[in-house]
Formats: sequence, structure tokens, C-alpha cells
Amino acid sequence: MKSHTHYLWFTTRQRQEIIDITDEVAAQVAKSAVKEGFVLVSAMHITASVFVNDHESGLWQDILRWLEESVAPWDPGRYRHNETGEDNAAAHLRSLTIGSCRSRRASSISGRGNGYSTASGTASGASE
Amino acid sequence: MKSHTHYLWFTTRQRQEIIDITDEVAAQVAKSAVKEGFVLVSAMHITASVFVNDHESGLWQDILRWLEESVAPWDPGRYRHNETGEDNAAAHLRSLTIGSCRSRRASSISGRGNGYSTASGTASGASE
Amino acid sequence: MKSHTHYLWFTTRQRQEIIDITDEVAAQVAKSAVKEGFVLVSAMHITASVFVNDHESGLWQDILRWLEESVAPWDPGRYRHNETGEDNAAAHLRSLTIGSCRSRRASSISGRGNGYSTASGTASGASE
Repeated sequence: MKSHTHYLWFTTRQRQEIIDITDEVAAQVAKSAVKEGFVLVSAMHITASVFVNDHESGLWQDILRWLEESVAPWDPGRYRHNETGEDNAAAHLRSLTIGSCRSRRASSISGRGNGYSTASGTASGASE
Repeated sequence: MKSHTHYLWFTTRQRQEIIDITDEVAAQVAKSAVKEGFVLVSAMHITASVFVNDHESGLWQDILRWLEESVAPWDPGRYRHNETGEDNAAAHLRSLTIGSCRSRRASSISGRGNGYSTASGTASGASE
Repeated sequence: MKSHTHYLWFTTRQRQEIIDITDEVAAQVAKSAVKEGFVLVSAMHITASVFVNDHESGLWQDILRWLEESVAPWDPGRYRHNETGEDNAAAHLRSLTIGSCRSRRASSISGRGNGYSTASGTASGASE
């Protein structure tokens, strides 16, 4: 069985960011030479998520605001986890909500513009 | 490695619907002749979700109401994404919550009545 | 293609519990002798979830409280599903939120202490 693994590294600048990794994933699928099989994109940090959705700036703002206002407010004093000296409990809860991995058929991954194939990563609480 | 891919197409009538696709998935697994392996069910629309849960009408009502009242109210004026002319930002957020794919062991997929093997699709904001 | 399947059984004592199954998963991956491939951990009960996150007691308390207070309050009278005689509709909604499966690269699974490799199971409404 053919397999190929690649690690992407990101340095985020803000507490919470969305990064479009579709082209990187598509490039690695091409490099793998896998014609039929699964692509698994999984976050290696437990405050990060992976999702497939639209690369549209208004939607990205909606997502970031929704994570803060509806899913789990940052508010460090609210969480027991932060008694360990961290401040990112909310980022863990946001990651549980969106989920830490997505799988797709290898041949369905394509570059930007498709609209249905955008793999985005959210990194919340990058201090983790 | 044996593989089999099949696309299901749905025409939804309401803004938000749950469709039980368990039998279709089970039929395709049978057709694939895969005895040991993974089944991946992933949504090709970014306002749709895939989940495995109970086919029980009360629960389905609970899910649809919970998506509207707790996860993300439809309320188009609330979201920046809708400035693009769309009205379905809430459906994107609902899809991020439930998630766009589920994987299972191929041999664990069976028809209705098992209770643990119901693969359901939600399609929200089908205009997307 | 090499494959290996193993079922874990749990008896929970409370309505909602988090169980760290990382070591069990790692042991099964070792037993499988798969060097390169996917591990799929999926819940066989539709009120249970699987996630990968930190084994930290404060965070676990945060997660359990967040599921009750933010995601879906237990409150049986609130849900139509409970008209069937069950009382665990909230557990179904919590499971939809966290999700019922996680996939990882087989070789990335390791025991406790890594911090990025904790596979935890939540079982909510174990009466289901």
C-alpha cells in the first residue's frame, strides 16, 4: 500500500487564526502519487482544528466571532484548566467542537476556487 | 487495495433536513466487496453534515431545533458571510459543529434497526 | 493490506464520564503490527464521543460542565426524543457536537505524557 505523510508547521500571530492549507494538502496528495485512497488531515495540537469550508473573508470573521461568542468565550477565569497556569481552556473546547481531523477521498482534493475542497486549519490558543 | 466510491445526490425541500442514508451506504459497502476496511462518508457541500445517530423522529426534531436555537440561529443579518448575497452563514456554522465526515469500519455498517449504524446527512441551507 | 480491529467495553458509573483510552489504543496499534496506516477510533454508542485532547483534570471538569451548560443541558423535559421513554436526548446532541470518531496516523499514537496523543472517550447517557 502506498502511503505518504507530510507535516505542515505554522507560526500564528494572533490568539485565533484560520489558515487555508488546501493548496499544501493538494500538493502532498499529488506528491504521494496515490490515485485512489484517503487523505487524513489531522491537527497535531490539541487547541487546533481542521475543517473543510469556504475561503470567504466574511465567513471567516463569522466563524472566529462564533467561536468566541457562542462556542466558548476566552474568559480565562471561567475554566479550571487555566489553574494550571495556562489561559487557553476555551481553545480546547473550540477544538472539541470543530474537531481535530477531516478525511476525504484523495482524488477530491483540489486547489482553491472549487469551494467544496477548502481545507482550513484553525489554531486557537497557539501558546499551547 | 480494493476501493469503491459512490456519490449520492439529494434534492432537499426545506432549508434544513435530515436524510437517513444508512441503507444506501450499506448497499455500496456490499457492492464494494470490501470485507475489511474503512468507509468514509463525507459531505460534498460545505453547508451539509454527516453524522451517525438514531433514526427517531423526536430526536430529529430536537436536532433541528437545537441547530437553530443553540448552535447558530439562521438570522441572516447576524453574519458577515451573508453580505456576499447568500443567506446561509448559519448553515456553515452548523456544519462546522456536526462535522462534514464520519468514518466507520466497513463491516460495522448495517441497515436500519441496528440503532448504532444510522448514517444521517443533514443538509442546511441547500441553496449553497 | 494488514488490518486489526479491537473492541473496548466500558461500564460507566455516572451519567457523563471521560475515559482515557490512549494506552489501550496504542497497545492495539502495536499488536496490529501496522507500521504505516490509519487508526480509526469510533464510538459504538450514539450517545458517546471520541476526542483527542489533554488528560488534565481541570480541563476534563471544564469539558463536562461545558457540555451541560453550553452545548445541551440535560433537562429531559426540553426534548421530544425523551417522549419515547428515554431521558438522554441531551447526550445525543453532545455526541453530535464532539463527534463520534477520530482518525490518526498509526505511528503517531503513543502513551500518556505526550499531550498530543490522548484519545479520550466521553460516554454520556450511558443508559442508551
